[in-house]
Amino acid sequence: MKDIASLLTSVREKSPLVHNITNFVVMNNTANALLATGASPIMSHAIEEVEDMVSICNSLVINIGTLDSAFVQAMKSAMKQARILNKPIVLDPVGAGATPYRNRVLQELLNTAAPDYIRGNASEIMALAGLSVQTKGVDSTESSMDSIQGAQKLSLQYDAVICVSGEIDIVVYRDQIMKIHNGHPMMTKVTGMGCSASAILAAFAAISSDKLQAAVAATAFIAICGELAAAKSTGPGSLQMNILDIMYKLTESEFSDNLRINAL
Amino acid sequence: MKDIASLLTSVREKSPLVHNITNFVVMNNTANALLATGASPIMSHAIEEVEDMVSICNSLVINIGTLDSAFVQAMKSAMKQARILNKPIVLDPVGAGATPYRNRVLQELLNTAAPDYIRGNASEIMALAGLSVQTKGVDSTESSMDSIQGAQKLSLQYDAVICVSGEIDIVVYRDQIMKIHNGHPMMTKVTGMGCSASAILAAFAAISSDKLQAAVAATAFIAICGELAAAKSTGPGSLQMNILDIMYKLTESEFSDNLRINAL
Amino acid sequence: MKDIASLLTSVREKSPLVHNITNFVVMNNTANALLATGASPIMSHAIEEVEDMVSICNSLVINIGTLDSAFVQAMKSAMKQARILNKPIVLDPVGAGATPYRNRVLQELLNTAAPDYIRGNASEIMALAGLSVQTKGVDSTESSMDSIQGAQKLSLQYDAVICVSGEIDIVVYRDQIMKIHNGHPMMTKVTGMGCSASAILAAFAAISSDKLQAAVAATAFIAICGELAAAKSTGPGSLQMNILDIMYKLTESEFSDNLRINAL
Repeated sequence: MKDIASLLTSVREKSPLVHNITNFVVMNNTANALLATGASPIMSHAIEEVEDMVSICNSLVINIGTLDSAFVQAMKSAMKQARILNKPIVLDPVGAGATPYRNRVLQELLNTAAPDYIRGNASEIMALAGLSVQTKGVDSTESSMDSIQGAQKLSLQYDAVICVSGEIDIVVYRDQIMKIHNGHPMMTKVTGMGCSASAILAAFAAISSDKLQAAVAATAFIAICGELAAAKSTGPGSLQMNILDIMYKLTESEFSDNLRINAL
Repeated sequence: MKDIASLLTSVREKSPLVHNITNFVVMNNTANALLATGASPIMSHAIEEVEDMVSICNSLVINIGTLDSAFVQAMKSAMKQARILNKPIVLDPVGAGATPYRNRVLQELLNTAAPDYIRGNASEIMALAGLSVQTKGVDSTESSMDSIQGAQKLSLQYDAVICVSGEIDIVVYRDQIMKIHNGHPMMTKVTGMGCSASAILAAFAAISSDKLQAAVAATAFIAICGELAAAKSTGPGSLQMNILDIMYKLTESEFSDNLRINAL
Repeated sequence: MKDIASLLTSVREKSPLVHNITNFVVMNNTANALLATGASPIMSHAIEEVEDMVSICNSLVINIGTLDSAFVQAMKSAMKQARILNKPIVLDPVGAGATPYRNRVLQELLNTAAPDYIRGNASEIMALAGLSVQTKGVDSTESSMDSIQGAQKLSLQYDAVICVSGEIDIVVYRDQIMKIHNGHPMMTKVTGMGCSASAILAAFAAISSDKLQAAVAATAFIAICGELAAAKSTGPGSLQMNILDIMYKLTESEFSDNLRINAL
């Protein structure tokens, strides 16, 4: 797991174009997070163009936050095309387990194309793995550490890297488990932090062929930025502003110096 | 009207889950305002899941800002379910009076289920009450004090609490009229302040059985936060940031100390 | 080109109502930028009401950022009505050249009603003019100076003012070419700056009968605000906040003093 921090420099140099079919709540944050990190965002959901958009992009984010039937149709079309063109797919199963419709759509999406990455909170990952969980809408009621079994099941089933956000962030790829100890609790008081993490994951995925390394780097990057931003913020309003400034300015050595990860 | 400020502590302790079918302009602000206050937001409009979402939530916000036929269908379905399950409904009639379509949809929504709360500016409330008003899009051209008659008419008709935002905020429940003197004019220069107020109202409604008290507390809370935020802001950009920080930090005693309300 | 700065005072005094059919990513920023500048925003896309909304508004923005077939239908209906009522139309061809669908929709919109203003980056303007360009999603790969020929072609074809954003902003109306040297590179790291520029252009267009003057004033206004905001910002997060504060506070003399424009 060397060279985690150097991936940030690669993202900035290559500025990958990330296609997002995502929810209405976070589109603005997500685009700004990608720009601040050094990537280029595209938001597009028209069935008439999603295949073409995937073709010119470097990776694809599928986020079901405010899903409806038109968006789901576009998601399937984009995922199929991304699979054909071998572009990395990140799935963010927002609210998995909250309603039968969400669960049904997630199965349809997973049957359409296996994602390379799935990123969610513990409740979402456990629901997606078919484990019985309590959910509270889009918020987790479970600890990330309790989701490891479910994450490993999903990882093996789809050959995907599974990222679970929480007090400790977990990244699971088959039998490899990484713990990221960065982050700050105030991040849960800003909407769309997880959605931004999924989009940034897609940016890192676009420039690295090592799936586990890309996931650890992206997860650690947003956690470190949040941690540094929280230290100079008086609440979630200033945190949302400061995290974008820090994403924009964080140097490779600041990234390395603040990194607190270990294998389980 | 004692214990206004203690309701804030209840919101933070119980963290009610608020289901929002709202407009695209304010979804992000609204979610952040709910999180900063201590509640949990859900945004969902798929006809396939709105009934299920209402079932797991504690209250429902219907905001017609960027309405279209699909959203209106979902709103009706959610309102019916909320009535059946006896969950509080807040209606925000954005732009009432601006177009015949908005007026027609509002009547359909009111015929579907009587809301527990209606919150808007004076022009919107007067238009909804069938009074002749000038509107300027979604901005009010009338004073909140002039809307009292219309608000009382609506309150009796639907047994609803009517909240009218303005230089003075008015809360009307049948023959009871409360005036809230907090707030700041710069709040009108940030989009979605009223929409956030409606969502926060739904959070307070979820934890209080006293409808008038919940409405006064929620209305005063956002007005005080806006007032305190404006005092340290150099414009609407910093106001939008500072209000979230203050929503997050305001103590019960700061709430009480700044409260300027009286009965009419 | 005198009285550029005095147009800002007119916008604030008349507070034009600007109807936006725009993309989901920027709706919040755009509304806030219009409010901070002193105009009033309306966002509405329902086919049932767009004609009525155009009738009560002073100008119309058509922005295809996250287009889909329902939005395109509403755009056409609104544009037709704006032409009939002689209200200024601003077209923002986001992502022109990125996909065949975008190009086809743009031709349909241009055939529906000639816009008074077209504002985009160099790649978008060149693509719209039928010139062969490389695009990178919604980001430009071309310099604004290279787009002058294409801009002039479009200007003559539609009798429209063409605004091209870039390191130097270009405003073209037939044989007249103005260069605006204000702005800051960090503005490209905040999503929707161009979309806000289009909306502010519509606000200035609503209060000036001199199309070229309105375009130069609006373009210079946002560039100056961005420049002054960048000087006090540590990244794109604080820039996004500071630019709204400066839009709100900029005086007519500060506008004049900072203006750096010349005819080509």
